[in-house]
Amino acid sequence: PRSRLPHVGTTIFSTMSALAQQHGAVNLGQGFPDFDCDPALIAAVHQAMLAGMNQYPLMPGVPALREAVAAKIETLHGRHYDAGSEITITAGATQAIFTALLAIVHPGDEVIVLEPCYDSYAANIELAGGRVVRVALRAEDFRPDFAAIAAALTPRTRAIVINTPHNPSATIWSAAEMAQLQALLASTEVMVISDEVYEHMVFDQQQHQSVARFPGLAERSFIVSSFGKTYHVTGWKVGYVAAPAALTREFRKVHQYNVFTVNPAVQQGLAQYMSDPAPYVQLPDFYQRKRDLFRQGLAGTGLRLLPSEGSYFQCVDYSALPAHAQRSDTEFSEWLTRELRVAAIPISAFQARGEHSRVVRFCFAKKDETLQLALQRLAALA
Amino acid sequence: PRSRLPHVGTTIFSTMSALAQQHGAVNLGQGFPDFDCDPALIAAVHQAMLAGMNQYPLMPGVPALREAVAAKIETLHGRHYDAGSEITITAGATQAIFTALLAIVHPGDEVIVLEPCYDSYAANIELAGGRVVRVALRAEDFRPDFAAIAAALTPRTRAIVINTPHNPSATIWSAAEMAQLQALLASTEVMVISDEVYEHMVFDQQQHQSVARFPGLAERSFIVSSFGKTYHVTGWKVGYVAAPAALTREFRKVHQYNVFTVNPAVQQGLAQYMSDPAPYVQLPDFYQRKRDLFRQGLAGTGLRLLPSEGSYFQCVDYSALPAHAQRSDTEFSEWLTRELRVAAIPISAFQARGEHSRVVRFCFAKKDETLQLALQRLAALA
Ligand SMILES: CSCCC(=O)C(=O)O
Ligand SMILES: CSCCC(=O)C(=O)O
Repeated sequence: PRSRLPHVGTTIFSTMSALAQQHGAVNLGQGFPDFDCDPALIAAVHQAMLAGMNQYPLMPGVPALREAVAAKIETLHGRHYDAGSEITITAGATQAIFTALLAIVHPGDEVIVLEPCYDSYAANIELAGGRVVRVALRAEDFRPDFAAIAAALTPRTRAIVINTPHNPSATIWSAAEMAQLQALLASTEVMVISDEVYEHMVFDQQQHQSVARFPGLAERSFIVSSFGKTYHVTGWKVGYVAAPAALTREFRKVHQYNVFTVNPAVQQGLAQYMSDPAPYVQLPDFYQRKRDLFRQGLAGTGLRLLPSEGSYFQCVDYSALPAHAQRSDTEFSEWLTRELRVAAIPISAFQARGEHSRVVRFCFAKKDETLQLALQRLAALA
Repeated sequence: PRSRLPHVGTTIFSTMSALAQQHGAVNLGQGFPDFDCDPALIAAVHQAMLAGMNQYPLMPGVPALREAVAAKIETLHGRHYDAGSEITITAGATQAIFTALLAIVHPGDEVIVLEPCYDSYAANIELAGGRVVRVALRAEDFRPDFAAIAAALTPRTRAIVINTPHNPSATIWSAAEMAQLQALLASTEVMVISDEVYEHMVFDQQQHQSVARFPGLAERSFIVSSFGKTYHVTGWKVGYVAAPAALTREFRKVHQYNVFTVNPAVQQGLAQYMSDPAPYVQLPDFYQRKRDLFRQGLAGTGLRLLPSEGSYFQCVDYSALPAHAQRSDTEFSEWLTRELRVAAIPISAFQARGEHSRVVRFCFAKKDETLQLALQRLAALA
């Protein structure tokens, strides 16, 4: 059949994971932990399955989990979302973002993405019949360029997709930047898809600036997050969307005809597990230690370390390495995987244009031993 | 926001389940069992979770499960699908159907559905930018009307959605009917989405006529099925798609940007459980007994029983009941739920036009006690 996505192949994450496996490489490419989740979480899910929670739950999700999400957002960000009409449990954050876009984008509408960004956004917008408007983050520091965003707004702009903490650059948006976005959109009807899947991985005593904290933004936003990232169960594919009732209504119309609902025992287990905030309260320290271990180990390799303010990624610029400076980031990633046996993701995979093409991304959500092994191998760069 | 699905509300299944709960009704509406799955299946999933299968698996699914599906199709229908390139595990059959449509429907393409049919099809086609072409099944027996299908084919016809065993009518397509479809499409490039989620619920020694059995059809088809229906775990939302490599390639391009993948421990547990065919081999007898119990119990109520050849549904025509003949099927379903406290689904919910409007659907995938209680209450109709 004639393709709906003619220029799309397999995602870079699948491709690099396969290459890593082929070469026995330490896989610091695809973003997922190589350690287990808390056994208590598995026990809670098992218990719910044994209790018979195996048939269709309510379409928007198990009430206990929606209430836990609403309570968490209210505690952390001071905004109340109604669990009944404003929170929906999804089959992961990617499905949530796609569903939100399908629910609001009409054929010919424009949707702004800030590049580099997660590769699903553009494909999702195209599948929804929209036009992808690519605005580059500032080349020097991957921060939002509000003049460029302002210049991209048109009467056809339906939405903008933002992401903080940011994948792949590991920057986080400041309160001032969120306020700037708010000011920029104030006179428009542009909606916001706010990808906050790394919300609990913010380092150096900084604060995650959720859209939920910004009246004026929150009313026009779908906040998307992921239990998989927060609780080390990326394979479970469970996420959520928080959005005002009018937006949630449209979201659910599409959701019910996409995945309809999500495994109720997994939802119940997560709800029970969330009653203790400790796991996500401890997450910044947990990952900051890994980030620091990894950064320290890279000192002396000749790789320039970009800031990692949040997420579980560390970007490096390899343009000071004489042997590699001529290589594209894709070539360098492949070389690293094949020759040093450490897999990374090239930044160019996150954008249609190649501005940041001497940068690759490592994921440090790995056991300390895994990071140490990768560092031993990367030492050969020096 | 301006709705992408302006005429859509909450699905009839959610609506009737809520009404059933509100009135303490026996819920024979939404199609799901009220009994548990085999504890061995839960144990297998639990074991896989404990073994650490909690991070992203391969995007198309855990190889062992894809191989189990391919082996099952080959055993039952004699057609080989390559587990690597032709089988994809999905977050349920609904997501599979939606994803297949998104992958092949270009804006303005026509897709034929045979009404009455599952309500997601039309919404899925619209969201994919296609035009829904509704062809009625024959009013007298819900069988395909090939003259009407032939008349609906145009150069813009991209696909047809078929479903056997059929929800809601409980008819199954014969080999002769499949051959007629094949002959009709032979000179076209029309693709087939074949919803076979009730594949293992076929009664009276009949045979499920999977598209896989028909060379000429199989090459143009996405076969969709559901582990949830077969193994009494509708809430788990796991299904699969079998399709030739060229179709699967396009399917996966969209799938990777929708749900990306499915819980690997659940997949592994299902793969292990499928190594014994007994559960699905016994399914026809298991459900046929429930069907017969339910049908016998309805004798004397004045409801006319339509044939139930497959699926877990029993349709009844209530037009011979003087007190109700003037009610629409929606009114009658609501009356049943409120007054007799037995929930059903009106057939009109499965179609845009109202040809079969004195028919409601009951689901008999329930404990014998549940069916007996429902029958006691329905006896008041007599
Ligand atoms: C769904 S695979 C991609 C995982 C991820 O979030 C990343 O590596 O960026
Ligand atoms: C996803 S809810 C609908 C379940 C079902 O298949 C039906 O009742 O027809």
